[in-house]
Amino acid sequence: MFRYKLIVSYNGKHYAGWQVQPNAVTVQEKLESALEVLAKQKVRVQASGRTDAGVHARNQPVHVDLTDPIDCKKYLRSLNGLLPTDIVVKSISPADPRFHARFDANYRTYHYYFSSQFQPLHTDTTTVWWYPLDITRMNEAAALIIGDIDCSSFTPYDEKLPHHRCYFFEARILGPDLDQRYCFEITANRFLRSVVRSLMGSLLLVGRGKMTVEAFRALLQHPNREAAGPTAPPTGLVLHQVGYDVRWRLPGDLKG
Amino acid sequence: MFRYKLIVSYNGKHYAGWQVQPNAVTVQEKLESALEVLAKQKVRVQASGRTDAGVHARNQPVHVDLTDPIDCKKYLRSLNGLLPTDIVVKSISPADPRFHARFDANYRTYHYYFSSQFQPLHTDTTTVWWYPLDITRMNEAAALIIGDIDCSSFTPYDEKLPHHRCYFFEARILGPDLDQRYCFEITANRFLRSVVRSLMGSLLLVGRGKMTVEAFRALLQHPNREAAGPTAPPTGLVLHQVGYDVRWRLPGDLKG
Repeated sequence: MFRYKLIVSYNGKHYAGWQVQPNAVTVQEKLESALEVLAKQKVRVQASGRTDAGVHARNQPVHVDLTDPIDCKKYLRSLNGLLPTDIVVKSISPADPRFHARFDANYRTYHYYFSSQFQPLHTDTTTVWWYPLDITRMNEAAALIIGDIDCSSFTPYDEKLPHHRCYFFEARILGPDLDQRYCFEITANRFLRSVVRSLMGSLLLVGRGKMTVEAFRALLQHPNREAAGPTAPPTGLVLHQVGYDVRWRLPGDLKG
Repeated sequence: MFRYKLIVSYNGKHYAGWQVQPNAVTVQEKLESALEVLAKQKVRVQASGRTDAGVHARNQPVHVDLTDPIDCKKYLRSLNGLLPTDIVVKSISPADPRFHARFDANYRTYHYYFSSQFQPLHTDTTTVWWYPLDITRMNEAAALIIGDIDCSSFTPYDEKLPHHRCYFFEARILGPDLDQRYCFEITANRFLRSVVRSLMGSLLLVGRGKMTVEAFRALLQHPNREAAGPTAPPTGLVLHQVGYDVRWRLPGDLKG
């Protein structure tokens, strides 16, 4: 058994998310099918985490076990030849058999691209809100998303989870770029379902002057799902990067 | 008669270029039709310059004359409602009746986006060349595109033109960005047909090691259309900006 690490990038527009599911086309399924053609075996891949329907990835790490060793360079070329153009394998490298794409990850960074202007050059990957936004205020609120936070305001209650806490390492609004786009960049040890999009929806209310920075702080400190903003659409959301290095790491006392 | 200046952005993928032509859909035609609906008159717009089929624009200035004065803010909203989503009017403002979108422009900046990696997040607006490129060398060559240059190596001979010279203010390769894209940025007083794409095609040969920087310099100094690289596809090309300010301006002795 030989383990490999792949970095995958995809445009999620036409997919029902990452994870294989019946009666819907997913990125995982496309990747596994392509690998099965080449490896001539049944293949299961393990990603660092799922992405929802319509969500994109710039660098989604994945590990896969194959019966026989492969020529990574040749596989990279062949795989990209088999995959549709909206899914790309950026790299393949041999991995330690103990490497786990999901459990070994120390942090995940998401980008949410948004703008007050229509984006003919970025139709698939930017959410447009057609009204003025106070970016300074949004940044003030974003800076509060730091440390150990109960995310119950921003994610549906899930009884299977022992708790709804995420540990946030950094959150900020970057931009504007040449197309007047902004990017909500957020890094945490993990993300629960819809957290980034729900935080974005609340930050949007702050930017529109419909929620104060203080009210946003209250959402972080005293979970209240009703008071949170709407969940922003998946169009603007990109899984930017997953880190296995120690740039950011959960404090020791929170692990377990 | 009231003159207005519009800044237009478009994704050129589905258009046969800027300029109205029979039997093909163009950006100019779409813009004029939308304006005619609102102004209830025959409308002709004048852009700073044409863009070829498939070429995009981030900021294409346009002037238009209307019989009656308009409410710019209201028009902006209505126009964008009438236009397809791949054409956007970014602003409308009253202009001096002597302002001319084409003749008053002091400089034009084009961006050509390219990468050695497939780009699922930038499918429409980046050209992918699937082999390694020596960006340092490309930059060395790009830096030579400066000042008064006879562009006959890079444009089809046109007998209607008094000469084929352009005055280049700056040319360089920027990047990489987060998606490992590079941008060939070039600014000149004017651009003749296919010059940016043809320069890009030659720079590409330099990046692949198939043309020396010296050979590239020779193309600039001693026009030879046969020796130039292929014309790069329109996908990566964006009219970035047109300047009416004096940041860059043709030296006085070259005007006329």
